Amino acid sequence: MQKNGIDVVAMGAAIVDVLANVDDNFIEAQIKKGTIRGAMSLIDEVRAVELYAQMPPAIESSGGSAGNTIAGLASFGGTAAFIGKTAQDQLGDVFRHDLKSMGVEFRTQPIIVGEKTGRCLILVTPDGERTMNTYLGASQLLSTDDLDDDLIQRAAVTYMEGYLFDPVKAKEAFHAASEIAHACGRKVSISLSDPFCVDRHRADFLDFVARHTDILFANEHEIMSLYQTKTFDEAVAAVKGHCEIAVLTRSAKGSVVVSGDKVIEIAAEPVAKVIDTTGAGDQYAAGFLYGYTHHMPLHACGRLGSMAAAEVIGHMGPRPAVRYSEFLKEAA
Amino acid sequence: MQKNGIDVVAMGAAIVDVLANVDDNFIEAQIKKGTIRGAMSLIDEVRAVELYAQMPPAIESSGGSAGNTIAGLASFGGTAAFIGKTAQDQLGDVFRHDLKSMGVEFRTQPIIVGEKTGRCLILVTPDGERTMNTYLGASQLLSTDDLDDDLIQRAAVTYMEGYLFDPVKAKEAFHAASEIAHACGRKVSISLSDPFCVDRHRADFLDFVARHTDILFANEHEIMSLYQTKTFDEAVAAVKGHCEIAVLTRSAKGSVVVSGDKVIEIAAEPVAKVIDTTGAGDQYAAGFLYGYTHHMPLHACGRLGSMAAAEVIGHMGPRPAVRYSEFLKEAA
Repeated sequence: MQKNGIDVVAMGAAIVDVLANVDDNFIEAQIKKGTIRGAMSLIDEVRAVELYAQMPPAIESSGGSAGNTIAGLASFGGTAAFIGKTAQDQLGDVFRHDLKSMGVEFRTQPIIVGEKTGRCLILVTPDGERTMNTYLGASQLLSTDDLDDDLIQRAAVTYMEGYLFDPVKAKEAFHAASEIAHACGRKVSISLSDPFCVDRHRADFLDFVARHTDILFANEHEIMSLYQTKTFDEAVAAVKGHCEIAVLTRSAKGSVVVSGDKVIEIAAEPVAKVIDTTGAGDQYAAGFLYGYTHHMPLHACGRLGSMAAAEVIGHMGPRPAVRYSEFLKEAA
Repeated sequence: MQKNGIDVVAMGAAIVDVLANVDDNFIEAQIKKGTIRGAMSLIDEVRAVELYAQMPPAIESSGGSAGNTIAGLASFGGTAAFIGKTAQDQLGDVFRHDLKSMGVEFRTQPIIVGEKTGRCLILVTPDGERTMNTYLGASQLLSTDDLDDDLIQRAAVTYMEGYLFDPVKAKEAFHAASEIAHACGRKVSISLSDPFCVDRHRADFLDFVARHTDILFANEHEIMSLYQTKTFDEAVAAVKGHCEIAVLTRSAKGSVVVSGDKVIEIAAEPVAKVIDTTGAGDQYAAGFLYGYTHHMPLHACGRLGSMAAAEVIGHMGPRPAVRYSEFLKEAA
């Protein structure tokens, strides 16, 4: 890497997670209010206050899909930066601290008045599945004004989360960032984030994949939603040639890396007990991108992703509880 | 219990814990700044900002010694209330939510301007030991103005945390609350909280125990500090007759309940792996007070305390991760 180069700059929603264990009845009651079990629903501030009041005691942990990935990348020992919008409030301080304390560059100016820092109310059921309810708050105000050309030019990979296709200005910022990255020969990567988010913005996602994406992350539901296929194999066939590398995760069935005509299958790592699946896909991306930016073969990138995903689902919260750099010794 | 009666009203510091795993070197460096390993140090806002900036990524969880105890009591199924001072900010909302969502009555008015909600920066070492650095913030503003006579009169036990002997007005509130409780035949209980806190206020604590205390909670270091004895047995001898019941915890060596001339020994519950000792004493008190307010024999009260303490040290954070009411079936 060149002098002052960094491995990955991530652009995403700056969100603090509010995690609580709930029973199945609690989820059933929320489904009537628009919650989608196992997925992410956007909520407004009124609904956020209502749902929080009904939730049991919670813990707070910095989150946000791309924020989780960049924290994981830093935990592997990668050099990392983040672009995302917080407010000047206590949860904004928490989000900022938790990235900067890992050595992640984070220079985006917080907003001063108006929206609060975004929150995701996460309901974790006894099976470990997380159901997310996101109040984007300040994070939806990310725009091209927040782009840091220097960071993007220095980063081997600019990584973005599909969740920010909902706010129009953030999506515009993704396009602009991709152009900056490609203009100096860097790679662009995006995660599709959520099958319902893909449904809402399918044409935009297809366009973004075709025009900008070198490395695509998706789980099986998201990739099938993108190409509207009935089977995973059809989706694998559809994605071939659409981007340099497609990384497709399948929970306990492992993952598949599609690169040109090659299809590489990677087994999932064993997990003693699934406590909370929040952050599984995010940490898979962290491991993969660490390997990729350190010139490892694709199967090794996938293995690191699997190890990080297995770690994060073994505890509450979406970010590393151990140093992921330990996995590098294990994998070697 | 009479109509509208409650089991316990707790008075204490409304604190949100900020918990991070650190290595021994990190603690060593902080000791030079006044941190006391394994104990609680009071810090000001400037030091709180400095220490937080140096800490690794953290999780946030409602804390405060008496707040933890009342959450545990509610988890056992007890009826509970809390009196303590937050600010009108996001961490204040978190603290309030986490009690109210368990059914705890909490009506103390937050402060509007000035101090922020209190925080405790907790450094958890690989041995599971917690080292606490507390910025009391709004919580030190508790005063007799915040007393809720109705709650105190309705509660079988008014429970207080020794940590609030540091702010003079809070200590005055403890004396006033004790008088209200005793005037209608209720019981008063206090936890000594910390051996260094006992050192700072030994005469005040001895006076409070002699004048007001029916049920005293202390660990072996605190009770030895209170009576300035060299051995635990001497401290047991010293406390006899000073209060109706003294409940003395000794970590892995179990606990001892002193009542009149009786000394009841209770074994510690087994713990698979100690992750974080934050809240151990608080949850012991929760179990004991649940048993006491439900007219159980003292050894059974101690057993419930031991079970709750064993649960809370098995995970990060000072409050229940399971429903403690399950322990009632197990203990029966």
